[in-house]
Amino acid sequence: MEENSALLTDLYEITMAEGYWKQGLRNAEACFYMHFRNNPFNGGYTIACGMERLSEIVDGFKFTDDDIEYLKSLKVATGEQLFNAEFLEYLRGYKPTLDIDAPEEGTVVFPYEPIVKVKGPLIDCQLVEPALLNAVNFESLVATKSARICNATKGAVAEFGLRRAQGPDGGVRASRAAFIGGCTSTSNVLCGQMFGIPVSGTHAHSWVMSFDTELDAFRAYVDTMPHNAILLVDTYDIVQGLENAITVGKEMEQRGQKLAGIRIDSGDLAWGSKTARKMLDQAGLNYVKVIATNDLDEYTISSLEDQGACIDSWGVGTKLAVAYDQPALGGVYKMCAIRETPDSQWQPKMKISAQQIKRTLPGVLDVLRYHDSNGNYVGDMVYDANIGTTSSVMVNPFDQVHRKDMAGYEAERLLVPLARDGSSVVKEFDCLEAQQRVKDELSHLDPSYMRFLNPGVYPVGLDKKMFATRQEIIEEHRSKRGSK
Amino acid sequence: MEENSALLTDLYEITMAEGYWKQGLRNAEACFYMHFRNNPFNGGYTIACGMERLSEIVDGFKFTDDDIEYLKSLKVATGEQLFNAEFLEYLRGYKPTLDIDAPEEGTVVFPYEPIVKVKGPLIDCQLVEPALLNAVNFESLVATKSARICNATKGAVAEFGLRRAQGPDGGVRASRAAFIGGCTSTSNVLCGQMFGIPVSGTHAHSWVMSFDTELDAFRAYVDTMPHNAILLVDTYDIVQGLENAITVGKEMEQRGQKLAGIRIDSGDLAWGSKTARKMLDQAGLNYVKVIATNDLDEYTISSLEDQGACIDSWGVGTKLAVAYDQPALGGVYKMCAIRETPDSQWQPKMKISAQQIKRTLPGVLDVLRYHDSNGNYVGDMVYDANIGTTSSVMVNPFDQVHRKDMAGYEAERLLVPLARDGSSVVKEFDCLEAQQRVKDELSHLDPSYMRFLNPGVYPVGLDKKMFATRQEIIEEHRSKRGSK
Repeated sequence: MEENSALLTDLYEITMAEGYWKQGLRNAEACFYMHFRNNPFNGGYTIACGMERLSEIVDGFKFTDDDIEYLKSLKVATGEQLFNAEFLEYLRGYKPTLDIDAPEEGTVVFPYEPIVKVKGPLIDCQLVEPALLNAVNFESLVATKSARICNATKGAVAEFGLRRAQGPDGGVRASRAAFIGGCTSTSNVLCGQMFGIPVSGTHAHSWVMSFDTELDAFRAYVDTMPHNAILLVDTYDIVQGLENAITVGKEMEQRGQKLAGIRIDSGDLAWGSKTARKMLDQAGLNYVKVIATNDLDEYTISSLEDQGACIDSWGVGTKLAVAYDQPALGGVYKMCAIRETPDSQWQPKMKISAQQIKRTLPGVLDVLRYHDSNGNYVGDMVYDANIGTTSSVMVNPFDQVHRKDMAGYEAERLLVPLARDGSSVVKEFDCLEAQQRVKDELSHLDPSYMRFLNPGVYPVGLDKKMFATRQEIIEEHRSKRGSK
Repeated sequence: MEENSALLTDLYEITMAEGYWKQGLRNAEACFYMHFRNNPFNGGYTIACGMERLSEIVDGFKFTDDDIEYLKSLKVATGEQLFNAEFLEYLRGYKPTLDIDAPEEGTVVFPYEPIVKVKGPLIDCQLVEPALLNAVNFESLVATKSARICNATKGAVAEFGLRRAQGPDGGVRASRAAFIGGCTSTSNVLCGQMFGIPVSGTHAHSWVMSFDTELDAFRAYVDTMPHNAILLVDTYDIVQGLENAITVGKEMEQRGQKLAGIRIDSGDLAWGSKTARKMLDQAGLNYVKVIATNDLDEYTISSLEDQGACIDSWGVGTKLAVAYDQPALGGVYKMCAIRETPDSQWQPKMKISAQQIKRTLPGVLDVLRYHDSNGNYVGDMVYDANIGTTSSVMVNPFDQVHRKDMAGYEAERLLVPLARDGSSVVKEFDCLEAQQRVKDELSHLDPSYMRFLNPGVYPVGLDKKMFATRQEIIEEHRSKRGSK
């Protein structure tokens, strides 16, 4: 599959592109932004991710001759070609010239604020929408899930969700995002190769079943991998499995080797891990680690920690790789400003909607993140970059009584350049650096935003002028159309 | 990304492969099978899908020189190479020689029965596991979700989940599986190009926002796409939007054209669609279709149908593309038989587990599907292909009192050859044919298996001899290890 095909888009983006091309908006410029309305998993924060893929999308964007032929082959019911032949020639070799700004991968972000800003020809802004949303929605979702899981324990977390992931690159992208969120390794070898992420894994139940006895299987495994031996003890019976692992661990000691760990993949992990720790310690194998797997997520890990389970590290699969309890981040991509030519004035735009939470923000948006003298984040203000901030007070977009004065705080721009004139300007996306950024970012967040139950709501507000512009646009539409 | 890389696997498959290679099991043959324990979505059936991708995996399997270099670069904590250099040379140019059997895409399948059977060198059986499970778990999940959604209505269902899908091929594969399950089209242009699936889509809110007024936007759209015009009426206000659409529809009539439809994407779709139908009919536009979108799934569609909503066709996105209410099918892949060399006797194998439902089936498995004289499916029997069936009575694997006599029914093999000697033997995977198969298959199922609430449980049983062999293996392990 050609992931970077310009055809990785929705058909309506191309029909709209033809419309803009034909209806005098060929040279129009627009500003769009991506935002989401709720943090995933009822949480208090979201980790921005997917920017590496987004830069690939921008750099790789191109309609090939095959693509044009395919589009030419599409017909409407009457048998006529769906697309205008002249328009298709226009698309051939079309090169987008977008400017894109986004947070660095691993940055914490919050509902309603722009997390990607796209500015440039209206046609480009439309064509890139589905691939952009696909990348940022999914990878941010999994990076956030991973951060939540990793914050539930001091132990290391290994990710191994490939077999249940949504497609091959669902697996690879999930593994990468999980690493950025805090996992220390992945089972996914292709992901390791592509992104330099540590890979881990030892053996499955089938290894044990391939030998006459479990003891034979364990001996054979540590003979093969003496420096990396974690024995899975629950193929038949966990206590018997632990006894066999201890036998093999003691035999290794005789050879000057050390058993690295045992893994438990079923049953009551609190009881199982305590039993394992006790049996291993009594046998003098207190250095042997206990690893737990079996449908884990932040809640089961947190509960096992609370029960005093003796688990040194964790393997997490399905629940992380597909973000099981919320498998999609509902990020949307909306127009916020337009101008007919690159020389004309920007007109702020917003979607009105009967539902308040679906109303969008108007203007060429930008975001300032404020922090106190300790570097702790205190609030984010959205403003129109063409106007600048007009007051230190920011207003909640849905409740004008709810305001916060940011006077005295320092601020930095949340969004940094990702692409200019249609080409990525980021030299390298380093997964380890992004993982470290997640740790740093969360250390600057008040713990109230990180708890699982009823997390605090981080302040995101609008510059006063933007709030006023928004009210004006709403009133104008109401008066034009009459209220219902 | 190289989807067909041999490295699209879990690390432990390769460490086990080295173990088998080193520990005298290099020539061992095994039989593995994939099964799942519950139909997804609390449903009564599952649609098998992912066989096209599985055949790609088998045909593309190869460790390249880069792959070998990467594996060579992996180190253990002591700094030594993880993998034996001689073993890596063995992997270079390694060609699997597996035989794989699976149902044809679009076939209905049920819990506990083998839905993929893999036979061949033990090493091959292990290496292919994660990619096989990844393909079949995900695509079967989405095809099943799609069948459920399409069965909730007589209207056409278009899929447009790309923007929320889990990665780019999460999108493409979901769109393909959704089509097989019964959707009539996808928004995903790349999927259309790759698999010849019809594509659909017209315009978004941003189109309307790009013009000074909604009426201008509608006029411009139908001017661009007169033969394929569906107008989205809820950017600002649905009643106003309908009035504007009617104006444009009447103008089209003057030019001898016809407005194809209007789309509603928010609010109360029952009220909105009835209002739309009424307004359109009163204006003489009774041929204009009403299309509904907005977070739909089988339950909302079914409820809207019950409320008499006037919706001719549906667009379904996120809930389908990521199978929102159950984003992973828990299919597992287990060893069921092994022999030390291709000339020796097969030994049946099973995983015992303290949890009854995690106990697997032993033998070189195969499945017969029985049907009555009308072609209606009455039960599936799992038996050992090396022995054949030994009785017309099949036994529930978890309850020996629960039996069913299949005497008098005709039977066919559920699993057909997909690969022989490591190469796909299926000439073509036709999505339209698979879509038709889903329809045919469901017409042979009793409606009780298709209802959403408390669906019936389709009979899957074991040949009597297999049931007995399984009991013997369990007893043998109990007596060896003592019961707990």
